[in-house]
Amino acid sequence: MTEFTATDHALMARALRLAERGAYTTKPNPMVGCVLAHGDEVVGEGWHQRKGGPHAEVFALEAAGGRAQGATAYVTLEPCAHTGSTGPCADALVAAGVARVVAAMRDPFPQVDGKGFERLRAAGIDAVSGLMEEPARALNRGFLSRIERGRPWLRVKLAMSLDGRTALANGDSQWITGEAARADVHRWRARSGAILSGAGTILADDPRLTVRLPDGAEFVPPLRVVLDPGLATVARGRVREGDAPTLYLHAPNVKPPRELDAARAAVATRDGYLDLEAVLKLLAEREINEVHVETGATLAGAFLSAGLVDELLLYVAPVLLGDRARPLFAGLHIEEMAQRWRLRVIETRTVGDDLRMLLRPA
Amino acid sequence: MTEFTATDHALMARALRLAERGAYTTKPNPMVGCVLAHGDEVVGEGWHQRKGGPHAEVFALEAAGGRAQGATAYVTLEPCAHTGSTGPCADALVAAGVARVVAAMRDPFPQVDGKGFERLRAAGIDAVSGLMEEPARALNRGFLSRIERGRPWLRVKLAMSLDGRTALANGDSQWITGEAARADVHRWRARSGAILSGAGTILADDPRLTVRLPDGAEFVPPLRVVLDPGLATVARGRVREGDAPTLYLHAPNVKPPRELDAARAAVATRDGYLDLEAVLKLLAEREINEVHVETGATLAGAFLSAGLVDELLLYVAPVLLGDRARPLFAGLHIEEMAQRWRLRVIETRTVGDDLRMLLRPA
Repeated sequence: MTEFTATDHALMARALRLAERGAYTTKPNPMVGCVLAHGDEVVGEGWHQRKGGPHAEVFALEAAGGRAQGATAYVTLEPCAHTGSTGPCADALVAAGVARVVAAMRDPFPQVDGKGFERLRAAGIDAVSGLMEEPARALNRGFLSRIERGRPWLRVKLAMSLDGRTALANGDSQWITGEAARADVHRWRARSGAILSGAGTILADDPRLTVRLPDGAEFVPPLRVVLDPGLATVARGRVREGDAPTLYLHAPNVKPPRELDAARAAVATRDGYLDLEAVLKLLAEREINEVHVETGATLAGAFLSAGLVDELLLYVAPVLLGDRARPLFAGLHIEEMAQRWRLRVIETRTVGDDLRMLLRPA
Repeated sequence: MTEFTATDHALMARALRLAERGAYTTKPNPMVGCVLAHGDEVVGEGWHQRKGGPHAEVFALEAAGGRAQGATAYVTLEPCAHTGSTGPCADALVAAGVARVVAAMRDPFPQVDGKGFERLRAAGIDAVSGLMEEPARALNRGFLSRIERGRPWLRVKLAMSLDGRTALANGDSQWITGEAARADVHRWRARSGAILSGAGTILADDPRLTVRLPDGAEFVPPLRVVLDPGLATVARGRVREGDAPTLYLHAPNVKPPRELDAARAAVATRDGYLDLEAVLKLLAEREINEVHVETGATLAGAFLSAGLVDELLLYVAPVLLGDRARPLFAGLHIEEMAQRWRLRVIETRTVGDDLRMLLRPA
């Protein structure tokens, strides 16, 4: 077991914060940050910004110049060993004369997966891994889910009243949560590879499903995915307006209108509904790391019942809508206490007048 | 407008914390704390512990002895001017030679209500009021409600799942929240003058409605109040077991069994239900400051619909019970967004694995 110093922790924390700057732009690549330092003196730092652009190590080495010689490199993910859009980072670190490499975690991507560490060690560099692995894994939970499980990380966003209602009986759901909560949602959308909704929501609300960031930050527009078995909603236009791509997923037996062209794909059905596991497999094949679901109680309940929800992003407004209003999840079929769904609260914070909770299955 | 110093604030904060020590024992009297100081040197302090016992000022003066001479007295409530169980505190402060009295607020109790300040000023003491009045009012919101509005402060406690459900369809509500939350509830019960429930809850759960404090702290047992129009639940015995008194409130046309004796009172009805305003008026007349309601969705919804809920104490467990489970409030009849009940979050904190929210109508 390698022992890490307080300086090691502080500089890895810095590298993790750098990595996070790429949250809206690196997808489908993982977020990576790199800090080069002599002791606690930082001589270079960088983060991966875009697919096809330089990796974090390249930026840090450039910033450090000759001072990379003998430095320790803190990287939030194992340096790559393969030539992709850029040359292998492991080789670049060796060439720059770095003395020690501390990684937060091994990169499970098949073309790396330990080979980066091997190259470094073969060149006589002290390469260790596992420092602050937990936050590093949390940061790239989408990328890791896709590589390790073959499906994206699935987040369901819901906004509800204090009494667990998402809309009135008449369907009205406007103004349950406040402006700050609605702005916050766009930051979660921005870090997602896809924003997914269902035909019911498209018909009822005609949403845009795009990202509007208040501060004008850069982002790669997430793919908009509509689960629409019968392609009944293609006339509802806003989900196809704007710059972001849109993908309709439909049942195999439906004849798609020619206008949809490449913006559609057939997915197997199960009991008349799209097979949700097949949906996620398809999205993983399209390099989607994180799927952000914004939909009604039925589809949200279906994802939950299928055991496919990785996290629940819940905005709670301090209002009561009463027992005739619409429920948070439909179709859970819980008859006994033992069947209740248990969750773990990851984070609770106030957003404007509302409460935001991030939860994961326990 | 009197200007208060940082020392004034610090010592009043100390007096408020002292006052709060009486939370479980002073009822129906208000909680009061007193600090005697020369500059920032505390020479005596005390708090009101029990009805019939000495007031906060008496304890503080005793502790200070001769050092009360020339001191400033910080009191969370105007010193009394009347002879009740004890002599007037205003006179005691004058006799001890206190130079200055700083109060958080005037005492609205008719026998005081400014007369305490008058006595002090008549004796040449610099008596000012209004320092940290807001937390002082919050502390005694029960007492103030009874004196100023003629009804107790009404708190409704509810425990729910994340999706706003208080029990399964079959009525099972055990183990929604965890042990820490259940222990916390007893601290809220302990500070209440009455714990109120309805016939439905008595029949379904046969609750004790007593206080069990884990640390064995002293408390005055709250009156247990059962709203039971037809006196249908008197055979459900646990609410009458133990040391705490019990009061059944019933419709005027019901002939009470002799065994109930004084443990019952008739209350006017309205549309077949007990008139909830009349219930609260009766409890105020019996010197109840805070009513703590633990009941089902129907009675809780009735208090809410009647506009009688002053605060909502909500425990939220990170579990989902599904849309067939029982709602938080029944009978709210909200058809349009404009009719939604708006609340204000006073405090949010984690209690064990659960979340506790304190809310008041906005």
